[in-house]
Amino acid sequence: MKLYSYFRSSASYRVRIALNLKGLPYEVVPVHLLRNGGEQFSPEYRKLNPDALVPALVDEVDGVQRALTQSLAIIEYLDETHPAPPLLPGDPIDRAHVRGIALSIACDIHPINNLRVLRYLVRNLKVSEDDKNAWYRHWCEQGLASIETMLARDERTGRFCFGDTPTLADCCLIPQIANARRLECDLSAMPTILRINDACLTLDAFAKAAPASQPDAE
Amino acid sequence: MKLYSYFRSSASYRVRIALNLKGLPYEVVPVHLLRNGGEQFSPEYRKLNPDALVPALVDEVDGVQRALTQSLAIIEYLDETHPAPPLLPGDPIDRAHVRGIALSIACDIHPINNLRVLRYLVRNLKVSEDDKNAWYRHWCEQGLASIETMLARDERTGRFCFGDTPTLADCCLIPQIANARRLECDLSAMPTILRINDACLTLDAFAKAAPASQPDAE
Repeated sequence: MKLYSYFRSSASYRVRIALNLKGLPYEVVPVHLLRNGGEQFSPEYRKLNPDALVPALVDEVDGVQRALTQSLAIIEYLDETHPAPPLLPGDPIDRAHVRGIALSIACDIHPINNLRVLRYLVRNLKVSEDDKNAWYRHWCEQGLASIETMLARDERTGRFCFGDTPTLADCCLIPQIANARRLECDLSAMPTILRINDACLTLDAFAKAAPASQPDAE
Repeated sequence: MKLYSYFRSSASYRVRIALNLKGLPYEVVPVHLLRNGGEQFSPEYRKLNPDALVPALVDEVDGVQRALTQSLAIIEYLDETHPAPPLLPGDPIDRAHVRGIALSIACDIHPINNLRVLRYLVRNLKVSEDDKNAWYRHWCEQGLASIETMLARDERTGRFCFGDTPTLADCCLIPQIANARRLECDLSAMPTILRINDACLTLDAFAKAAPASQPDAE
């Protein structure tokens, strides 16, 4: 498998964690979002992903190269095609809980703070650097506070977001915390999230997926 | 089942379509996002969903009321607990394709244009009405153009986004088109999307889920 990835992209980071948790070999193909006018906009990459967003995963199925997009769709695909270890629990109500946490990050925190959105704020709306950073922190802190509430009150929360093995929810949470720390968000009132983050980072699958461990890290 | 819904919320609209396609009875509990300072912020609703976003679905499982959040997690739950008719295809690569389209809308179009984000632009960043509407159209048109490309080039596209029966992708696409039209986005170069929209709207499941058909419609 080939993963088109940018070291700092948290959506790419999610898929790298999932591939590592599954123990699947993959080749990282770096797509630099800032150089060369943004390599994600090249005609070659747009053939893989018309959205011009990373990541994309290319897998060979029945001798044909198939390109998949959207980090959560990719991780569900990996979980269906390589079931061990599972990244979702078995019970539908628990699966919905884990997916709910993952989607809360993937829909309601991350896209609002994505590179292209921050650029639009600065270039089109002439928002100041301070206001841009306040925007980032607002959505990130508000979203993570909701997730802290959900995790802290739920008896299914264990060493990780759900029980004592990592799931799709952890694949999404840890990259979001890395972003939050880079932008100096205030996570002091989020002990559950920080505890889970620490637990994940002791695992090789998470450590090797981190931005600083990537071949294209700067 | 009880669906906490706002008639104009496109995330609620997705779940209404899925419930109707499955033929499942449900009670709509209106949550007015604008009245009373925003009913989604009430302590009662926040107990169901700390994110203070609609929809939330409450289902009784083994005699216990369980609240689910995030429209895509809810629809996957409905598909797992009520498999007929299926809202996802059987093959993992096809499931990833359908989920990819759904997530492209649910992550990369809709949240950037959500009520709370538009409010922040106006109230915190003092963005003009014209610039706010241009922001909306920018993300909506760009995102739907990518989806048009994906659908137009893929041989799996049929009467609907995938083949000839509606899937999760159609549950997401049709509410997004309704929003796009309300905000006067230019969809003239998107014939595949418009054709699929027309096909969906001939079905009762979609028509009855539309904002204008809701008990809280204004």
